[in-house]
Formats: sequence, C-alpha cells, structure tokens
Amino acid sequence: MSQITIVDLAEKLGLSKSTVSRAFRDSSDISSKTKERILAKAEELGFSPNLYASSLRGNRSQTIAIIIPEFGNKFFSQAIKGIELVARSKKYHTLIYVTDNSVQNEASIVRSLVNGRVDGVLISASGEGKDHSHLQTLLDHGIPTVFFDRSYDDFQGHFVTGNDFESSRLATQHLIDNGCKKIAYLVINQNVSIGKIRMDGYRKALEDNDLPFDERLILDTENDEIKNRAAIQRLLKQHKPDGIFASVERLAISTIRVAGQEGIQIPQDLKLICFSCLDIADLLNPSLSVVKQPAFAMGKEAANFLFQALDKPSENLEQPNTTFLESNLIFQASSQLI
Amino acid sequence: MSQITIVDLAEKLGLSKSTVSRAFRDSSDISSKTKERILAKAEELGFSPNLYASSLRGNRSQTIAIIIPEFGNKFFSQAIKGIELVARSKKYHTLIYVTDNSVQNEASIVRSLVNGRVDGVLISASGEGKDHSHLQTLLDHGIPTVFFDRSYDDFQGHFVTGNDFESSRLATQHLIDNGCKKIAYLVINQNVSIGKIRMDGYRKALEDNDLPFDERLILDTENDEIKNRAAIQRLLKQHKPDGIFASVERLAISTIRVAGQEGIQIPQDLKLICFSCLDIADLLNPSLSVVKQPAFAMGKEAANFLFQALDKPSENLEQPNTTFLESNLIFQASSQLI
Repeated sequence: MSQITIVDLAEKLGLSKSTVSRAFRDSSDISSKTKERILAKAEELGFSPNLYASSLRGNRSQTIAIIIPEFGNKFFSQAIKGIELVARSKKYHTLIYVTDNSVQNEASIVRSLVNGRVDGVLISASGEGKDHSHLQTLLDHGIPTVFFDRSYDDFQGHFVTGNDFESSRLATQHLIDNGCKKIAYLVINQNVSIGKIRMDGYRKALEDNDLPFDERLILDTENDEIKNRAAIQRLLKQHKPDGIFASVERLAISTIRVAGQEGIQIPQDLKLICFSCLDIADLLNPSLSVVKQPAFAMGKEAANFLFQALDKPSENLEQPNTTFLESNLIFQASSQLI
Repeated sequence: MSQITIVDLAEKLGLSKSTVSRAFRDSSDISSKTKERILAKAEELGFSPNLYASSLRGNRSQTIAIIIPEFGNKFFSQAIKGIELVARSKKYHTLIYVTDNSVQNEASIVRSLVNGRVDGVLISASGEGKDHSHLQTLLDHGIPTVFFDRSYDDFQGHFVTGNDFESSRLATQHLIDNGCKKIAYLVINQNVSIGKIRMDGYRKALEDNDLPFDERLILDTENDEIKNRAAIQRLLKQHKPDGIFASVERLAISTIRVAGQEGIQIPQDLKLICFSCLDIADLLNPSLSVVKQPAFAMGKEAANFLFQALDKPSENLEQPNTTFLESNLIFQASSQLI
C-alpha cells in the first residue's frame, strides 16, 4: 500500500491539496498542463496507482461500500435501506460488510476496498480501538468516506448521527419527572462514541436534578444475551434501581424478560425507556417508551453526503462536518407514573 | 449481451455441457488441448467474453450478489446476515440489491451483474411476472445462481426455502382446533410462489376439516400499510372471520391495530397466527402465535450451496434441487382457545 498521501504530493508540487484533488477527479477547472504535471509526479512517487485505474481515467467502479458493526437489528437494516435507495437512484452498486464490532475486521475490510473496488465508503464505527490508520488509508486513496451513527473521535470528516446527548438527557429527565431517583444506565461498550455520549446525556440529567452519579448503576455489557440477562438480574437484585435507561433496544428487551422472571412489575416497580427503532413498541406489553432514531433518514442523509463528495470531491473533502438528526421521544406505558 | 449459451457451444463442439463448463472453470481434469479447442470455439462464436475475464483466467471477482424483493423486515435482514457470514468466511465481497418487488428491476439488476462483476448470485424472487429471460442470461454466463425463500416455477436450479405448505396447513389446523370455523387468509400478492403455497396449505386444512373455501375470506393486499388497514377493516366488518392466518407478519400487525380500533378482542373474538421472524412475539400484547422461519439458517444454507457450485461448478450446475427447511410453530395467546 502506498504511504504517500495527497498532502505529501501537494507539498512536493507546491500546489494546494484541492488542486491536486481536482486532477485526480479529472475536473475541468484545472488546465490540462497542470493535470499532467500532477499525474506525472504522482506516478513518480508511486501515489495511488489504483486511483488511476478507477477515478483518474474516468473508469469509476460505480460501487460504494457500507461497513456496519453488526447486522440484525432494526437500526442498521433501516439505515441500509435508506442508503440502498440513494445508491440505486444514482445507479450505484452497494457492497455490504459486517465487522462484528471488531476494529481489526474493520481495518482489514477497509484495506480490501482501496484498490479501485469502491468509489466511496459509508461506515458506522466498530468500536474504539487505538489504531485507526485504516481511515488514513482511505484518505490517502482519495476515497470519500462518511460515518453514520458511530464515529471515532480522531476522524475528521463527514459524520451523520443522532442528537444523542440531548435525547439521552431528555429520556433520563422523563424518568426523573415520573418519580425515579435511582436510575441505571445500560450500555454495550461504554467506550464506543454513542455509548459515551448517551451516558453524558444521562449524567447531565442527574446533575440538573441534584441526583448522585453512582458507578454501580452503570451496566456495561457485551454482545451476549445470556450474560447480559444474568448481569441485569444481578443489578436489579443488588441495587434495586427504580428506573432504567437502556442505550440499545436489546438491553431493554432483556430487562423486560428478567423483570418478568423476577416478578418485578414495569412500570410499577421499575420504569424503562430505551433507544429503539422498533415500529411495534406500542404493541409490547407494557408498551415501550423509546428514543426513536431516524435510522432510514440517517442512511439517506449519509449517502447523500457521500454522493455530493463523489460529484464534487475537492469542495466536500475540505469541509468536514457533523450533522445531527433529531430523534423522536415516544413516552408509553413502560415509563408511566402510576 | 451474448445470445450463445453453453449448451449451444457444447453442441457445436460435440462435447458434453460439463466438459465445456470445466474448460471455463480452468479445471485440471480436462486436457489442455480440449480446453484450447473449447476456448477457441467460444471466442469464434462470441460466447461470454466476460466469463473469460473473470473465471477463465482465474481472475474471479470474489464477489457475490444478494437480490431481495424488499428490505426492512426481519426475515430478509436475518437471511442476509446468514449469507454475509458465509461469504465473509470465504473472503468474498457481497453486493446487495433490492427490487421493490418488481420483476423489471430484478431483470435490470441481473443484467448489470453478468459482465464479470459477480461470480454468483443469491436471489429471492421479486414476483411472478411472465418474462424470466434474465435467469437464462445468468445461466448463459455460467453464473451459479441459488434462489432462497421465493422462486419462480420455471426456474430449474438450486432453491432453499421453508416447508411452507406443511406449516401453513398446521397453522390453519391449529386455528380450527381452537374453534375457528371462518378463517381468513391474508397475503401480499397471492401469485408469488410463497403466497400460493401458503394458501395451498390453508386450503388443505380447510378440506381436511370439511370447511368451505370462501374467496371472500382471501385478502390479497399490496405493500401499502394504509390501504391494507382499510382492507382489513372492511374484511372484519363485512365478513366477521373468527380466525386469521396471515402469510406475512406485517399483515398480522395491521390486524392487531385494526382490531384494537374496532374493539375486536384477540383472541376472544378473533384468533390470529402469522408467518413472522420476530424474536419478541412473546412480548406483544397479546403474545403472537407465529410460524417462525429459520431465516438465518436459510441464508447460510443458500450461501453454502452457492459456494459449493463455485468450487465445483460442473457437478453442481447439473444437479438442481430444492431444500426445504423446517419452520417452528409457536402457539401463544393470540390464537388461544378461551
């Protein structure tokens, strides 16, 4: 893999990054002489021969990749649906990859994509990790990349996500308004961006109401339902929370099952609210209070950003930003004041 | 697109189809002389130049395509999860396409895939239609294709599906055993293979119990929730069924909502069972009786067949078969005898 970046190349040439970028996209607003000079230097330095093959010579792959940490929950299937719809309208092909929440898998997938297989990447971060050099690989190859839902702190680019801090604060405040004084926070990997931000919102609501933050009420779980149910059972028995804010739907579902076994009544003994994209939350027993993310819209928005970047690469690559989409808080029986 | 098929080519050469097929897969068990003769004739007739590019010269795309009629229901996301897992273990890339239940879209997707973009195709049929010549295109290009869940009557190849006739018969019999005498069948497009087969199972159960088949109790709907709810409302008001067998989950969900509005109690006034892959059917109010298809296993099985065909093309292409995977009938409150 080439270690030369577009920045190195621009420096060597004494040109701006955007001018170099334009050459690689065969833009008409730089002179053919400048373009030739850039391409010659790129060839000399061994920069991105595969980009030549795909973009330079106008021979795009017409393919994007979606990389997600897991499959089978409603959030990601809705988001993919939104992405696929946009890609189809652009006559693009869509590759799909699942990292199983492993940053190593993510890196290996990314590295398999840079040889001209895809023109752009949509990614929801697998986890925290420390080595994110695979993101630099994407940049080096001039492949526009947009993150959605989950990102990395050190990623400087387009990111489309929910207004998780505010909706987590509001969800927690709602439990407090309905009488809860001892609210547990359930999360899968509190180090992942969304796990952290949602906890920040939860903490803010506690602070606003002069309620103590108690580490023992934070349940950081794994992707193993059996273990999670056991951990929830211990939490309910040992610490007797009167409210639960779950950062993912499946932890709320596990809570409902455990509460059922333990004879704990929702919402009488325990109030519950969670992030969820379920469209039948109102049909559950009890109907489930949710923070509903606009998953489909998030997929569409991320894809739209990606295609903007593909259409006008020099402009968009230089204006990274984060777009926050509002979630919808739906209060139902599970968090009701009795 | 080439109109010459592998069968034409074999005839012209006076060889068997499997020998020709071996040449195209660069198999070691035919002589290099025969191989050359086959390749020369293929070139002469203009047969499948892209197959040359991808398979012949050992330069596979390492990519498969999944084509599904719709996205966003649990069945297809589970099936894709199974497929993706197998593809990943084989170090294959996975393209995903959605036809929106349109056979025209399906044909156009298939035709975009035959130029070496993919080595194999997994497909769940979009609908009935009359022109399935795109399937012949896949065969002509020697691209192994496996159908899952839904197929076409005229497709002669590998097909992995549920034991839908038997599970539909059993689901209907269960409603009859619990006292239903006037059972409606709800379907989205009764002409699609699964719609037909599930209705056959329903009819068989009626016959077995000397209950009349009444066309007015068949509700053939579209993919429009608002219209479907109105149609279900009319059905419930006009024909007052005492049981409903829904061939897809979303029609059962619409039924629960309409019954709620109309003050019709489930299961007291109306018993309900449906095909569904919901893993929280037991948490609904009332808990929902389901025919649960092994969606994840179906995806895995279909992908395994495809990779067998990719590994040993000559053997597998000539032995088409249908594999039936058993569904799990789970009887809960929604169909209970009160």
